[in-house]
Amino acid sequence: MKRSALSAMGRRSAAPPISWLMELTLTRPQLISLAAGFTDNASLPVSEVRALARDLLGTTKTGQPALQYGTTLGDPALRQCTASSFALMDGVLGRHPAYSPGRLLITHGSQQFLYMLTEAICDPGDIVMVEDPTYFVYLSILQSHGIETRSVSMERDGLSIVGLERRLKELKRTGDLKRVKLLYLVSYFQNPTGATTSFAKKRAALKLLRQYERGAGHPIYLLEDAAYRELRFSRGDVHSALAVRGHADRVIYSGTYSKPFATGVRVGFGILPEPLFSTTLRIKGNHDFGTANFLQRIITRALQSGRYEKHLSALRKRYAHKARLMHDAITKHFPREVECWEPTGGLYFWARLPRKIQTGPKSKLFQRALENKVLYVPGELCYADDPTRSKPRNEMRLSFGGAPDADITEGIARLGKAIKSVM
Amino acid sequence: MKRSALSAMGRRSAAPPISWLMELTLTRPQLISLAAGFTDNASLPVSEVRALARDLLGTTKTGQPALQYGTTLGDPALRQCTASSFALMDGVLGRHPAYSPGRLLITHGSQQFLYMLTEAICDPGDIVMVEDPTYFVYLSILQSHGIETRSVSMERDGLSIVGLERRLKELKRTGDLKRVKLLYLVSYFQNPTGATTSFAKKRAALKLLRQYERGAGHPIYLLEDAAYRELRFSRGDVHSALAVRGHADRVIYSGTYSKPFATGVRVGFGILPEPLFSTTLRIKGNHDFGTANFLQRIITRALQSGRYEKHLSALRKRYAHKARLMHDAITKHFPREVECWEPTGGLYFWARLPRKIQTGPKSKLFQRALENKVLYVPGELCYADDPTRSKPRNEMRLSFGGAPDADITEGIARLGKAIKSVM
Repeated sequence: MKRSALSAMGRRSAAPPISWLMELTLTRPQLISLAAGFTDNASLPVSEVRALARDLLGTTKTGQPALQYGTTLGDPALRQCTASSFALMDGVLGRHPAYSPGRLLITHGSQQFLYMLTEAICDPGDIVMVEDPTYFVYLSILQSHGIETRSVSMERDGLSIVGLERRLKELKRTGDLKRVKLLYLVSYFQNPTGATTSFAKKRAALKLLRQYERGAGHPIYLLEDAAYRELRFSRGDVHSALAVRGHADRVIYSGTYSKPFATGVRVGFGILPEPLFSTTLRIKGNHDFGTANFLQRIITRALQSGRYEKHLSALRKRYAHKARLMHDAITKHFPREVECWEPTGGLYFWARLPRKIQTGPKSKLFQRALENKVLYVPGELCYADDPTRSKPRNEMRLSFGGAPDADITEGIARLGKAIKSVM
Repeated sequence: MKRSALSAMGRRSAAPPISWLMELTLTRPQLISLAAGFTDNASLPVSEVRALARDLLGTTKTGQPALQYGTTLGDPALRQCTASSFALMDGVLGRHPAYSPGRLLITHGSQQFLYMLTEAICDPGDIVMVEDPTYFVYLSILQSHGIETRSVSMERDGLSIVGLERRLKELKRTGDLKRVKLLYLVSYFQNPTGATTSFAKKRAALKLLRQYERGAGHPIYLLEDAAYRELRFSRGDVHSALAVRGHADRVIYSGTYSKPFATGVRVGFGILPEPLFSTTLRIKGNHDFGTANFLQRIITRALQSGRYEKHLSALRKRYAHKARLMHDAITKHFPREVECWEPTGGLYFWARLPRKIQTGPKSKLFQRALENKVLYVPGELCYADDPTRSKPRNEMRLSFGGAPDADITEGIARLGKAIKSVM
């Protein structure tokens, strides 16, 4: 023999670009990792979840349902709670179909939602438009399904509308519009750049997509990944694309409780219109017929008891503090030539080095950084494969999420030294 | 417009056959459901999980990692624990590569493992051989992926080896062997028939598959779904297919902690050889980059503390008791013409009525049962679509898992009345 035992997807599924970074972290314990997308360890709600579990499992009346199978859709109380608080965040008063629990599906983290939604909409050979750069695990999902990507340029205030229009025009010209299914947008404190897309831009994007639908012959959806939405450092939330009047039937919203509460308690959700809702629900039935009920009930109680809000409010201060530490260290240790995007929420800084300085896994800088015992995510891992442009190779993602305070300062100092040594 | 917004998978994903049964249960609270695959409510380990969560979250040292992201593979301690206890169950002493934690992947229930493994191996148009009847959610997975099914007849002691050989011969004759990727076997207390496949039959099946591999041009794997393995009523475990000497590289084993411990704490696992292991791991990375750590740590502690074993031993007695209740009620209330398969573990009885009595959703019997306020799973839902035979329409699956004692007795009495009324 033998032909491969694997399916086309199996053969396409590449080792995730991040896996060797994780390997490095595990095998070199002295390394300071500014690479991992972990959340802050010290502020994890250990005693809160302990109290929630104690109460939840304190009686058989509430304990048994938490330890039993639930429905594929998710816990009704959690769906209700999530829909209401979400409507409130978007400034929606009273009933509005887009914010109904009937459109809301609970998943095992929002990543699982992204996966299932993509299965529901995209065939191999279809095209998804993504920000340039974007969330690399979503790129892996697309790649493993044989879905092509086309990039849309980014600005410091998020998606470039001019870039989106240019892209759509080009897809129309080349006859590829029929293959376009989605625009994927990490709209809040984007992974990896930290940039947030304004409400006006969301509206403009939806209008453009609608305009080009005729050429596509089918809906082109906006998939809004709001994983970091609640991790803003101060007031001033931006409404989601669902709040754009008249376009809610083209918006898919992906949210999560993992990052704002506890990443070990993985509960995410999706809000989506028909026929996507029923289809994704059926796919969820095949994946696991429902997210672990125990996790869902813990989150429901956290929300209902006010512990969630309280935790989140402390967490925001914590991340704001860590971002400030990183900002100060960058100012002190990085050469002036490095352009940094300072975020107002989320977990990441984005740094752009002079064009001649490469940051990739095989670059001199990456090796110097390793010698100095500090790790970052090479920016090129966050760029889609797109035959119409070459990938920038001089950027990096720096996370202040997982690292303790002292490591942020020391890690940036080490990295600054490495950068200076190659400039 | 408009063409469908859905992918081929989206269009293929049918409403699961079981969903209207669940609807019925929810909308008619007086109904006794012998249909649902729920586990026993009264014996759910409420106080045990409460104590485990209390200890786990009692210190930040153990609490923080439980609430943080873990690795895609799963908690190392849980993988180690599972691999050792599994080797012990299979009578393996000392090191054996097939029972190494390096082949073991933790998933969000074993259903998720079945899904990802199928993605790793099967393309649309491929063929999976299944028992006739088999677990209907796996049939939904196959159907949604455009994978064809071919059935292999069952006997009271599980898979028919004669049937398997006949099937393989036929697939060779028709030139379809190249499309055959898997034999899916629910080997312990099968869902839906309760039948267990003997070790000798597993060995014979593996030999046959190997024999036909040449014609296929690629490995044909045995996918052993052991979801009910630990729910045996008494001593006398059967070794898994992994223990068949010389064939471990063709065996994929799917196991779970959900059913033997708590279905709301969904943790499953898969054991599989390369290149399937690495591929499925990458697919898991795309699905959710790891099962909720909190659930994994709860299970690890349950195993390490002995609470798991203690619970399981009580649970076995409980299900043995419920099965006996169902058996006695069937003996008392069903007409002699009904042939019942009494299980020695698991959650299900299988009943075969005289051929002229249909049991399907639109049958007179099903309507009578509803009028009598009792629900069963029509057997035909458990049969694969297979162009080479017609589905039997005169069977039913009866579950004693979720129903309280009184409901088992009363439910069978009601059902007996309904059966008599149509005979």
